[in-house]
Amino acid sequence: MKKLNIIKVGGNIIDDELKLAQFTKNLSLLEEPFILIHGGGKLATDLAEKLNIPQQLVDGRRITSADTLKIATMTYAGFINKNIVAQLQQYNVNSIGLSGADGNLILSKQRDKHPIDFGYVGDITKESINITLLKNLIDLQLTPIICAITHDKKGQLLNTNADEIANTVACSLSESFDVELIYCFEKNGVLLNPEDDNSVIEQLNEVAFLSLKEKGIINKGMLPKLENCFNALKEGVTQVGIINASNIVNFITKSTSNGTQIK
Amino acid sequence: MKKLNIIKVGGNIIDDELKLAQFTKNLSLLEEPFILIHGGGKLATDLAEKLNIPQQLVDGRRITSADTLKIATMTYAGFINKNIVAQLQQYNVNSIGLSGADGNLILSKQRDKHPIDFGYVGDITKESINITLLKNLIDLQLTPIICAITHDKKGQLLNTNADEIANTVACSLSESFDVELIYCFEKNGVLLNPEDDNSVIEQLNEVAFLSLKEKGIINKGMLPKLENCFNALKEGVTQVGIINASNIVNFITKSTSNGTQIK
Repeated sequence: MKKLNIIKVGGNIIDDELKLAQFTKNLSLLEEPFILIHGGGKLATDLAEKLNIPQQLVDGRRITSADTLKIATMTYAGFINKNIVAQLQQYNVNSIGLSGADGNLILSKQRDKHPIDFGYVGDITKESINITLLKNLIDLQLTPIICAITHDKKGQLLNTNADEIANTVACSLSESFDVELIYCFEKNGVLLNPEDDNSVIEQLNEVAFLSLKEKGIINKGMLPKLENCFNALKEGVTQVGIINASNIVNFITKSTSNGTQIK
Repeated sequence: MKKLNIIKVGGNIIDDELKLAQFTKNLSLLEEPFILIHGGGKLATDLAEKLNIPQQLVDGRRITSADTLKIATMTYAGFINKNIVAQLQQYNVNSIGLSGADGNLILSKQRDKHPIDFGYVGDITKESINITLLKNLIDLQLTPIICAITHDKKGQLLNTNADEIANTVACSLSESFDVELIYCFEKNGVLLNPEDDNSVIEQLNEVAFLSLKEKGIINKGMLPKLENCFNALKEGVTQVGIINASNIVNFITKSTSNGTQIK
């Protein structure tokens, strides 16, 4: 099967103009086809603040109000997505920016309002992904750049977790491609000690993960990300990595060992 | 040749939630394939005002500063484009939203800074349009929804006039399709008396246009629009109309006479 890299890039890279410029330049060096998925980072939060739109939280989890969705749509699908596309185009990567509404790419279901009403948040399954569209675009040698806005096909846009989109796209395409799923962020990988950037766990299997989870060494945001990674491997994704965005070329070409490989 | 409708929708329709909802519903009733081009309207101006971003004008013409471009990208390519797409998707129109950077759809050239520096404004020619991409998307039965943001392929997004994009797309596709170009706005057509909505000029040829222009009856924004219309006919576009957005279905199916037909 043909190799396909599904790359997720995190907010801390997107928010930093220089890091993002370096990242898009690095992406242009990849020889294999890829799909990029991105979220928003603090651009959306900053804009909400400037517009005096309060960020509601319930149990520490963000609520997507109508105004927050509008801001997410403007920043993720508008500013960030189009700037990434324009930057890649300058390096002759024929990228095409997409939300989940475009070409009915990602169909989501608004999360049940009970017990907590999270607002305009859409959940997805493997069946949500329009594989045919992605295959057609790749056949046209286009590189899809996907933002974390989906739709319910009833006219409503919805906010969806970008990690989950990356994971679900990777799983759904693993029947047609040899898929490598790579999460890029500002750290060097999964760290044994979050304070020590050199404490990267180079290889992580599920047994070790469960043990680290039990000991509380891996927690917070990394937990669902890693659970998703193991799930992806079970669903047919060939390789999964969590790496520093600046290492993307080396990680994919395997010329040096860096970041965390999920086994 | 296969019929293709190139439809431009104006800001006053986009700004009005109800009018836009009715317009997207009407578009879904069209049996022939179409491409929609939209600008921004006052959503961008409102956002600029809320963010205290001054709108600079020189000789009554707007300057696109870096901040204004950011707002245009957020509102045109983000909020407006994705909402139109989501609305059309609900009616099973498989629309795909695009800026000029996406798939290198519209390559523009930043306007010369002399004598007036208009900022991040991009001008286009017939060669700017990626006809192959549009044909490929139409072959996939996708309906392109194009916003008025282009790029220079050096990483810079640029603001481009939506009327001009509609016109240029229509001309560039007229070699491959039987193209009808339709400008939709809030008035009933080209009016003899701007105060009287019933004074629609039903058919307008170039001789009559030049005479009305000389008498000052047609002026301001309508002048470049009409000059573009006559140019489009010379470039091979089969039919050109300027109509009330609410008449789109009737105008295309010709079941009633309404709006202005440019001859």
